[in-house]
Amino acid sequence: MVYLTRRYRFCAGHRLHNEALTSEENRRIYGKCNNPQGHGHNYVLEVTVTGTIDPTTGMVCDLSMLDAIVTKEVLEPFDHKNLNLDVESFRHRVPTTENLSIEIFELLRKRLEGQGNGERVRLARVRLAETEANFVTYEREENLAKRI
Amino acid sequence: MVYLTRRYRFCAGHRLHNEALTSEENRRIYGKCNNPQGHGHNYVLEVTVTGTIDPTTGMVCDLSMLDAIVTKEVLEPFDHKNLNLDVESFRHRVPTTENLSIEIFELLRKRLEGQGNGERVRLARVRLAETEANFVTYEREENLAKRI
Amino acid sequence: MVYLTRRYRFCAGHRLHNEALTSEENRRIYGKCNNPQGHGHNYVLEVTVTGTIDPTTGMVCDLSMLDAIVTKEVLEPFDHKNLNLDVESFRHRVPTTENLSIEIFELLRKRLEGQGNGERVRLARVRLAETEANFVTYEREENLAKRI
Amino acid sequence: MVYLTRRYRFCAGHRLHNEALTSEENRRIYGKCNNPQGHGHNYVLEVTVTGTIDPTTGMVCDLSMLDAIVTKEVLEPFDHKNLNLDVESFRHRVPTTENLSIEIFELLRKRLEGQGNGERVRLARVRLAETEANFVTYEREENLAKRI
Amino acid sequence: MVYLTRRYRFCAGHRLHNEALTSEENRRIYGKCNNPQGHGHNYVLEVTVTGTIDPTTGMVCDLSMLDAIVTKEVLEPFDHKNLNLDVESFRHRVPTTENLSIEIFELLRKRLEGQGNGERVRLARVRLAETEANFVTYEREENLAKRI
Amino acid sequence: MVYLTRRYRFCAGHRLHNEALTSEENRRIYGKCNNPQGHGHNYVLEVTVTGTIDPTTGMVCDLSMLDAIVTKEVLEPFDHKNLNLDVESFRHRVPTTENLSIEIFELLRKRLEGQGNGERVRLARVRLAETEANFVTYEREENLAKRI
Repeated sequence: MVYLTRRYRFCAGHRLHNEALTSEENRRIYGKCNNPQGHGHNYVLEVTVTGTIDPTTGMVCDLSMLDAIVTKEVLEPFDHKNLNLDVESFRHRVPTTENLSIEIFELLRKRLEGQGNGERVRLARVRLAETEANFVTYEREENLAKRI
Repeated sequence: MVYLTRRYRFCAGHRLHNEALTSEENRRIYGKCNNPQGHGHNYVLEVTVTGTIDPTTGMVCDLSMLDAIVTKEVLEPFDHKNLNLDVESFRHRVPTTENLSIEIFELLRKRLEGQGNGERVRLARVRLAETEANFVTYEREENLAKRI
Repeated sequence: MVYLTRRYRFCAGHRLHNEALTSEENRRIYGKCNNPQGHGHNYVLEVTVTGTIDPTTGMVCDLSMLDAIVTKEVLEPFDHKNLNLDVESFRHRVPTTENLSIEIFELLRKRLEGQGNGERVRLARVRLAETEANFVTYEREENLAKRI
Repeated sequence: MVYLTRRYRFCAGHRLHNEALTSEENRRIYGKCNNPQGHGHNYVLEVTVTGTIDPTTGMVCDLSMLDAIVTKEVLEPFDHKNLNLDVESFRHRVPTTENLSIEIFELLRKRLEGQGNGERVRLARVRLAETEANFVTYEREENLAKRI
Repeated sequence: MVYLTRRYRFCAGHRLHNEALTSEENRRIYGKCNNPQGHGHNYVLEVTVTGTIDPTTGMVCDLSMLDAIVTKEVLEPFDHKNLNLDVESFRHRVPTTENLSIEIFELLRKRLEGQGNGERVRLARVRLAETEANFVTYEREENLAKRI
Repeated sequence: MVYLTRRYRFCAGHRLHNEALTSEENRRIYGKCNNPQGHGHNYVLEVTVTGTIDPTTGMVCDLSMLDAIVTKEVLEPFDHKNLNLDVESFRHRVPTTENLSIEIFELLRKRLEGQGNGERVRLARVRLAETEANFVTYEREENLAKRI
């Protein structure tokens, strides 16, 4: 299998807070990440696609097409934004790195696989680092997919 | 699948030497790593857990719980120590990066999966870098595990 | 000259906005950094001190003393905070990397040089990286200082 | 499973250009990478092997043997070379990171598995980074391999 | 003094070769960097400017102005190019990292200081890394400059 | 001024302990770095030389000459060694990063400036990182030097 990974960066503010919990519970669960005024991060996003190598180009995927999709779906709506207040899908969902990874995976998968490229290029993995010490990887369940 | 990885660092001394071999054999196998007075490294440890995302918190794992376990099981006994002389399990086992990775995996697995968290959070992988140029990854054999 | 540098990290939210300017001017000057809901960064702070090496310890500076000062003066008030709203000195000053660097330099200088350590340890430089691509260095003007 | 990864670096020039396409098509597909005079990169190569840990040495693989193979098969022919003009296998194949990864995987697999080491050490993965933002991973299809 | 540094990247091919020397001398001086077909690098360029902080903006320098200058003067002519063949000023000068640094410094200095910004913003330093292990720093001779 | 920096790495064990102090004082001053069995680090050494650019070669310094000197003076005696026990000059001196930096500077300065290169190439700075968070820079006092 050949996997191509491309790295992107965006900076965003967020606050970890679940409206359904009490203030006390929020502070216990999220600690300093629950600070009412929010804080922020330099996120590092790695997008991994897989597929067969096009025998003409020697490439799995046209990078300018991939860049255009990631810019449109992730960088424009997320970069230099407040994730809780500026991004519709996190207005009532907690913007943890786990939830962000899944959201980004789904946004990219829809566009990548509905491109005519869809037969050849598949999104294999999204990896999102929140800090130098923490990252989340979200992968397609390859084995399940293969059975269908 | 969602994987959460957290990075830790520890500094330790060690010597690669197998008591069951001759001095000559040790030098041939381990080269400069067999230096009798030892040497040392800044180890970088990445601990990867997996599980379902808790719908209340949006997280796979409580990071302060994970930090407490890694601190207790790995950082306190290993950091700023001589692995051969200060760590019981390497008194008669060679502290190669391979053996260290397995030891750390087992130490963490026992604690992580015996926490009541055990049903939800599983240790997926430990990655231990000894230098900028070398690292070892030790993974649970997912497929075997799933069959049981 | 011997310089000792120690690296710290903090995550914070901010918005670049000068109340004395119009919305239009703010957008033109600060671009996407002027986003009304703010955004944020993983700041990397390098603190450099200089002085003579203590002949007994072989060290320029007691690192636990330095860590305590940086934690108290910078990490506690800045980490996981919104710089504009949570930090008094930026309520009416724009939290650019330049202004943050000078503020941090002055906070640390006062404490470091008023310690009894002050005769031996001097703050030489603060370097603050806002992103992987941008950093600001603020230095004491050594030459001027030496003339006095 | 235990995986051992070792990182190598080489610098090389290349040009992305397919002789079977028109100049116009080449420019459209490869953009600035099609520059007629070529350009170049600092490639970072990660070679991952897997196998059982030798109970005597505590190691998966003798690193000096691995270094010798990578030096002979990859670094000597590729480092400080022009990949299109100096490397036989890219005289008529486009040296994309995808094609380079597969070529390197095959060069290393043949030597590693024809060593008497072959029963114990297997090449699991090659990862080749072309820039700070792009890398390709090429893996053996483990499951297929196991069935045979 | 406040210094603002911004990091840029470009990829280029080059060959170290002095036409005035014999083949034998070129090989002895430049070693594998003298390979006739050339090779290449991912250059990392750090541009450092200094000046007073504008009290209105809180910034030393408008980054979009700086980006525009570096893009025009360095990235467009150098990125994905062969430095010996595509860049006029290296047609007959050896593109060592030292010579590249000075060339880039002069290109940027002329534009930065002839901008009306010139009174406030000065180019302090250019740092160019050729590989992970080598970099050159070229600085304005501050003291001399001040005397004039 | 043109400065050329080259990065080297070595791994070593050490213990911070001053024989002239009591056990209690050693523990208070050096904390966990006083562990009796020692520990170790991956040191990263940056050596910076300065000089005029040789108009024939376009280089400040022959890198293979610099590599040979650093290998002989620093890497061979320090790499994969115990600094306290294997390196003569630290048998009775505490191997703090400060003391190591000065020792390395002096070892390199003597050789570099006694080479016939000495008139052209001067050692400007040594920077030694002990961990990802700590480094020491030792510089020649340029201004003093210039007055003589």
